Amino acid sequence: MGMKYDYPDSPLYRLRHSAAHLLAQAVLELYPGAKLGVGPPIENGFYYDFDLPQPIGEEDLPKIEAKMREIAARNLDIVRIETSREEARQLIEQIGQVPYKLELLDAIPEGETISFYQQGDFIDLCRGPHVQNTSEIKHFKLLSIAGAYWRGDERNKMLTRIYGTAFFTQEELEDYLHRLEEAKKRDHRKLGRELGLFMIAPEVGPGLPMLLPKGATVRRVLEEFILKEELRAGYLHVRTPEIANLNLYRLSGHYPYYKDSMYPPMVFEDGEELILRPMNCPHHFLIYKSEPRSYRDLPLRIAELGTVYRYEKSGELSGLIRVRCFTINDAHVFLRPEQIKAEVQHNIELIQKVYQRLNLTDFWYRLSLRDPDNKEKYIDDDAMWETAETALREALDELGLEYIAVKGEAAFYGPKLDVEVRDCLGREWTISTVQLDFLMAHRFDLEYTGEDGKPHRPVIIHRAPIGSFERMMGFLIEHYAGAFPLWLAPVQLTVLPIADRHLEYARQVYERLREAGYRVELDARRETLGYKIRYHQTQKVPYMLIVGDKEVEGNLVAVRSREAGDMGQVTIETLLERLQQEITD
Amino acid sequence: MGMKYDYPDSPLYRLRHSAAHLLAQAVLELYPGAKLGVGPPIENGFYYDFDLPQPIGEEDLPKIEAKMREIAARNLDIVRIETSREEARQLIEQIGQVPYKLELLDAIPEGETISFYQQGDFIDLCRGPHVQNTSEIKHFKLLSIAGAYWRGDERNKMLTRIYGTAFFTQEELEDYLHRLEEAKKRDHRKLGRELGLFMIAPEVGPGLPMLLPKGATVRRVLEEFILKEELRAGYLHVRTPEIANLNLYRLSGHYPYYKDSMYPPMVFEDGEELILRPMNCPHHFLIYKSEPRSYRDLPLRIAELGTVYRYEKSGELSGLIRVRCFTINDAHVFLRPEQIKAEVQHNIELIQKVYQRLNLTDFWYRLSLRDPDNKEKYIDDDAMWETAETALREALDELGLEYIAVKGEAAFYGPKLDVEVRDCLGREWTISTVQLDFLMAHRFDLEYTGEDGKPHRPVIIHRAPIGSFERMMGFLIEHYAGAFPLWLAPVQLTVLPIADRHLEYARQVYERLREAGYRVELDARRETLGYKIRYHQTQKVPYMLIVGDKEVEGNLVAVRSREAGDMGQVTIETLLERLQQEITD
Repeated sequence: MGMKYDYPDSPLYRLRHSAAHLLAQAVLELYPGAKLGVGPPIENGFYYDFDLPQPIGEEDLPKIEAKMREIAARNLDIVRIETSREEARQLIEQIGQVPYKLELLDAIPEGETISFYQQGDFIDLCRGPHVQNTSEIKHFKLLSIAGAYWRGDERNKMLTRIYGTAFFTQEELEDYLHRLEEAKKRDHRKLGRELGLFMIAPEVGPGLPMLLPKGATVRRVLEEFILKEELRAGYLHVRTPEIANLNLYRLSGHYPYYKDSMYPPMVFEDGEELILRPMNCPHHFLIYKSEPRSYRDLPLRIAELGTVYRYEKSGELSGLIRVRCFTINDAHVFLRPEQIKAEVQHNIELIQKVYQRLNLTDFWYRLSLRDPDNKEKYIDDDAMWETAETALREALDELGLEYIAVKGEAAFYGPKLDVEVRDCLGREWTISTVQLDFLMAHRFDLEYTGEDGKPHRPVIIHRAPIGSFERMMGFLIEHYAGAFPLWLAPVQLTVLPIADRHLEYARQVYERLREAGYRVELDARRETLGYKIRYHQTQKVPYMLIVGDKEVEGNLVAVRSREAGDMGQVTIETLLERLQQEITD
Repeated sequence: MGMKYDYPDSPLYRLRHSAAHLLAQAVLELYPGAKLGVGPPIENGFYYDFDLPQPIGEEDLPKIEAKMREIAARNLDIVRIETSREEARQLIEQIGQVPYKLELLDAIPEGETISFYQQGDFIDLCRGPHVQNTSEIKHFKLLSIAGAYWRGDERNKMLTRIYGTAFFTQEELEDYLHRLEEAKKRDHRKLGRELGLFMIAPEVGPGLPMLLPKGATVRRVLEEFILKEELRAGYLHVRTPEIANLNLYRLSGHYPYYKDSMYPPMVFEDGEELILRPMNCPHHFLIYKSEPRSYRDLPLRIAELGTVYRYEKSGELSGLIRVRCFTINDAHVFLRPEQIKAEVQHNIELIQKVYQRLNLTDFWYRLSLRDPDNKEKYIDDDAMWETAETALREALDELGLEYIAVKGEAAFYGPKLDVEVRDCLGREWTISTVQLDFLMAHRFDLEYTGEDGKPHRPVIIHRAPIGSFERMMGFLIEHYAGAFPLWLAPVQLTVLPIADRHLEYARQVYERLREAGYRVELDARRETLGYKIRYHQTQKVPYMLIVGDKEVEGNLVAVRSREAGDMGQVTIETLLERLQQEITD
């Protein structure tokens, strides 16, 4: 392994590392002449990179996996061999593993121990550690093949990377494979297409998703929800343009330092330079600055559903989650230092409301503090850091919230509080953030008149309970597997008349629900009921309302729930009550 | 006058033309050596351009006006003199009106009659016509002074332009001056500042207004209103990015033809060229094209509150009305030719709802048709033009609507229907539009499968009942003079406790109204009631709710209306009923 491939030393990583060697040995036996690159354990498994004498595909994986099992069953001891640098060079040449292993050898710093690991006639330059015997590697699976440039550099040769995973028990392996399968099913890009939520058109550009009517509905409902909560919580919503004069970002210090992730400036004939904004803060600072502010006005909470533009590399783009243009439920709170604790608690309350509404229960707080041993990395204001970090801790302690405090993770300009969520597949997402900022008020010369009649600098909080709407939607699609809760579902109910003679009554039901404010559709297509039910089930519509002779006669609807199936007949009044109950829950 | 200054010949224009001569005569008497430029009648009055021997200011206008009255009272006959070109040259030189009048003389085409008009010892090269005697010019006023380049060319000398107006009766003059005064008071830029609706920061850029909390509220309420109406009317709202690959506008044909009003492209390292969109259509076309469409799906109505970017010249920018970035309540309806009439009526219904909600009653329809004598100026599809123009006329006729039909005003790609509104000052605004388009479906190769199973091109309707939100807000601010109707007012009610002991009850009233969904403020400042009433009156808050001893005791509020003043005491229940009534009216 190359020395830059650092990973934790744990029994599981050791097992996976040995599984990678087993893979390499199997490939060498099946494809003589193959050259080995690197083969580290990784978070969810392992991989090995090969320069192969012939191309292979995923259809070859079972054969390789069978060979791995065969070798494992040979009960080979795994032995560490330490050598001098010269002996190592000779050994690598002797086993024919040039040029890659030689390059890796050359990259080992002088004075470091050089080691190989051997099992049977397979020998690999490797720092280790490994398990003792190949027979310990029992529960593994090869997963996929990808191309990977040697040492990650696109000027180098493209090697063949084989991914796999390994666990200590069959149960753990199966559980992981199941989650992997689930993750594929829940992939928001796949569901986005199937459920008509969004599309990405090459004619518009990569990383620039377009929300189709159903996706736009989910987005709108989310926006309406957070807007209502924020207006109630005293936020003043504004609307500012998504472009500004480049000088604004020179003043904020973002340009040229974040130039690489910003869109290029647009230069006009008269010399004006405009740029798509990479963040909303400077616009809000100008609004703060547009009139004199007094300590009585603080905390002043300027909010916006503000769209920003960042030019991510095309290889890093992914559906709604990594994009080049996204909207933040942004706000900048201007406050006095002594208001930090109360304002952070005010923020946490809002965050809790959001998570409750979204039915997210598995989340925790992460407090990022300054590294007290490296103060020079942070803005120089000891008293402010002390005040802010204490206030943040007290805010959390008083609310009885558990949190992880991490020293050295604060931004240059202040400490922050993030909220991390575990989704139903156990993956962790950072969604919400509350970020303190001692710097920008200086940069923009923002002031308020204190009780003492003198000018003071406000502290600024940047915060976003929803984070980016695009990312949140991507997260929610995967977390809910596309089955949005009733209040958020793009189509909440579908009315299904069984035959044409039920159409008139179906229309009445439809109109009644629409009047009541529900997003309802009427499926009057001449298809069988079974076909329609299957269709709307795949579209994950929370409730289907089936109307036939009995329902027309009794002024009823037969309710079919996405989760619970047939729920029997009810009157429209009862249905409306139950829906109202479910929505407000 | 130069021959390019064409204007209608009407008695009023004639009067104003003579008033311009009177102004010139007065200036020559007061400022000997002044040189005359041009002095035409214009829509609301007249002006004359002068090259003066000394600078003058608005403070000099009364003196000039007095001199005009003195000359008018001389009862001078206004006499037309026709000359040869050579005589004209001599005359101009003789009266010292070089170089400007000589240039104007040279610009008169050969063969055209050359005439002067004389009153007393004032002689001016002029085509006429004029009134008979200076005593006819009685009801006039000088209004302002501005700089104006000779012949409108900035390479020429800047002359001094004096504006004035004249009418046949004193009443008409006073009425006009009153409306002028009103227009100044209603200027949305002035009110935008005073009412905290929007600001324009040089750090962001000219033409890029930022909506402050109150302006953003008006915008949001307008958006919510139109969104609700459009969703009800079957529009599918989408959300698409405000940028796209430049090629999209090459395909649409906008680039390079509209290049001058587009922002410059942003070119990335990998050669990708992105550009801020000048319109929303191409994004919507791609959504239409993203799945196969059948005749059963039509009309398909794709809508968006879509922001677009156009680079207006800085001299043409004005508050919210002429901007460089604005949001259209846009939609593109894809339909079969035989659906045009019904869809246009569907559009007119929505427009009528909008105007009713905004309480705009003085509006009319303007139908822009092809010029049948210049067919080559339009897309070549006679049958389609015939179908569409007939459908538009029938749509209007069937609804019994009066309209003006204007031949030759259609766009290249189809006829259109505009709605023009007269505001309370009598000014005309074009707000809404319904535009047919036979071209873009070809450009973007858009199709639907007809009943015959074959592919057909849809007709496209571009339509926007609100038009641009920015412009609409500018219009509404001026039309309402900032006094928004209850449903649209950024702050609908203010609770004013008379003394501190009424604060608790005031809070209850405030909370009660807030819970009921009203935008309400509580003014707990320690100021006199009189001060607060005056303040909220200037802020044009529809209702103030004053609470003192009697109100606390009787569980009442004393209502003060912005328009009607004191309205007496009512219970909260009665108040809520009345508000609800006013909102839904």
